[in-house]
Amino acid sequence: MTHPEFLPIQWKSTHLELLDQRILPGKKEFLKIVSVEETILAIREMAVRGAPAIAITGVFGLTLGAKSRVGVASSKDIDSLLTSVLESRPTAVNLSYAIREAKNRIQGITDWSLITEVWESYGKEMVKLDLSANRALGENGLSLFPKDQSEYHIITHCNTGALATAGHGTALGVIRSLRDAGKKVIVYADETRPFLQGSRLTAFEMMEEGIECYIITDGMSGWLMNHRKIDAVLVGCDRVAANGDTANKIGTYNLGIVAKEHGVPFYVCATKDSFDLNLKTGDEIPIEMRKESEVTQFDFLKTEDGKFLFPEGKTSPIGARALNPSFDVTKAHLIKNFITEFGCFVPEEISVRLKNV
Amino acid sequence: MTHPEFLPIQWKSTHLELLDQRILPGKKEFLKIVSVEETILAIREMAVRGAPAIAITGVFGLTLGAKSRVGVASSKDIDSLLTSVLESRPTAVNLSYAIREAKNRIQGITDWSLITEVWESYGKEMVKLDLSANRALGENGLSLFPKDQSEYHIITHCNTGALATAGHGTALGVIRSLRDAGKKVIVYADETRPFLQGSRLTAFEMMEEGIECYIITDGMSGWLMNHRKIDAVLVGCDRVAANGDTANKIGTYNLGIVAKEHGVPFYVCATKDSFDLNLKTGDEIPIEMRKESEVTQFDFLKTEDGKFLFPEGKTSPIGARALNPSFDVTKAHLIKNFITEFGCFVPEEISVRLKNV
Repeated sequence: MTHPEFLPIQWKSTHLELLDQRILPGKKEFLKIVSVEETILAIREMAVRGAPAIAITGVFGLTLGAKSRVGVASSKDIDSLLTSVLESRPTAVNLSYAIREAKNRIQGITDWSLITEVWESYGKEMVKLDLSANRALGENGLSLFPKDQSEYHIITHCNTGALATAGHGTALGVIRSLRDAGKKVIVYADETRPFLQGSRLTAFEMMEEGIECYIITDGMSGWLMNHRKIDAVLVGCDRVAANGDTANKIGTYNLGIVAKEHGVPFYVCATKDSFDLNLKTGDEIPIEMRKESEVTQFDFLKTEDGKFLFPEGKTSPIGARALNPSFDVTKAHLIKNFITEFGCFVPEEISVRLKNV
Repeated sequence: MTHPEFLPIQWKSTHLELLDQRILPGKKEFLKIVSVEETILAIREMAVRGAPAIAITGVFGLTLGAKSRVGVASSKDIDSLLTSVLESRPTAVNLSYAIREAKNRIQGITDWSLITEVWESYGKEMVKLDLSANRALGENGLSLFPKDQSEYHIITHCNTGALATAGHGTALGVIRSLRDAGKKVIVYADETRPFLQGSRLTAFEMMEEGIECYIITDGMSGWLMNHRKIDAVLVGCDRVAANGDTANKIGTYNLGIVAKEHGVPFYVCATKDSFDLNLKTGDEIPIEMRKESEVTQFDFLKTEDGKFLFPEGKTSPIGARALNPSFDVTKAHLIKNFITEFGCFVPEEISVRLKNV
């Protein structure tokens, strides 16, 4: 059970509280979000991140937006409200599903007060559903690990835990389930540049859980697979195309290639809302490009008074250029199995499996 | 021609000046090194780095050690002096060759004053030889790039330029030679965690040269190979075994695997002194493990008053563990060609080619 202190999204009826993931692990501070505009900013600036967490946050943001319009705005505004939240981050599909469902649920309703109620209860429902889906996913993942083994060495990328979801996690949910099944788990967390979700957030969650964890830089996985027996790579995802191509945090694709080279099974942990059967292949997934200063200057790291922690010119020359795709696409042939709340299956089975859920 | 201001190793007869690579690009400061002990510390702490640069620095360190012993120490001390420098960094073979040659050159000499002279002139000779070898290597590399193409996109890892050598560079030497041959070169520099040699040093050298350069994180190369036509990966090396397995900065192996997956030619730039035919395979190459705080806390980055720039708990939780192998071994089958001062050849040709130089 995740400690309530680390539940990243806490709905408080009048406002939303988000655990600020830009300043973890140094500080545990909740942002008090009172408007849809603040919600969008929090998503854009990655105060909240992780595909499932963003979707839930988006719906509570809509709720705040609807509430502020009660008695002051016409219901013609609905579409622009929905679009503004949808566009806050483009790669994860969960958010777009949530926005579509939010729209469906208010068909024919024009009263902002009623809309507020509908969206608030949808947000609360999403939290419950995500938690139970994550727990089922974690349990299902156990079937892929040989039962007669007492210890597993697992590499992860980015953060896929309580902090990225409503509170249990996808890939880290599987690791929690393995631990709960009495197994010893040793986690190697890719630090995950540029935003350092691995070293800041995954290492933090693992330490809170008492699970042995070693941070590695994103270039160390090949060395590690040659030097220790790695049982699996477990990652989350932001969008899975019909053929199994999977968008996830930048660096996942390299890790998938390296795992294949070493014969290490590469598992993608996904809930239903990560699959996008409208897209044939990963080539169609939009990839968010973020600002260069995240790479050149670690610019999410700020001092107390809001200045860059790294003065310009410290980690790269002044004026240096960078590329900063926030996601990449791991090709289906690199993925051994998807682990979901409705079972484990190979990429070729996606369409069939999705029909039945 | 590298600007003298950026020549990393400058011998001044009474002392050695080393461009402090821990604080580049923010500050250009030379360390004044007056003893062998200071030389060893500068190597260990990576104020000077790069296999060829370390070897040359080591010999000038020996010179300082010998000079300080004139009239005060017995020549029985020679072996411990040689060993102390040899052990400053274990992975690169260049240093061990240099130490062996330094020993050979003083066979039968017991006078510290004479020894000082021999080593000083050997150090100066190494600078000249390294420069000319690098220039020849750069020229030889041209043959691997199709002549009818006017623009090349090249990924590099770590820093293999003037800063890593006596002043021209190996992989960056090839890039300089391409540019000098009138070609447009676009360089993508892996930032190279943990020490950031790519973003701090390679980007700096490329900007000084006016060569277009984009920093990428170490997990972006796969994405990049899918999104732009990459003509080659060019890396340096610290030690090449007889079968072609190549030790180089951590992250090189992952890059090699990713290049192979995309059919991008992977070239290792090496001078004669990087080959170690005594080792059959890369499994025998000693890999230096460095302190965890380089990963968890970017601990080479200091404030003006010598404190960590990242307070503890900022980039990882307090007490977090990490692994920090400083090098990895790229397997020979991933390497398309070695580029050397005596020509370009495939891994299988190493033994034959080395016999003739």
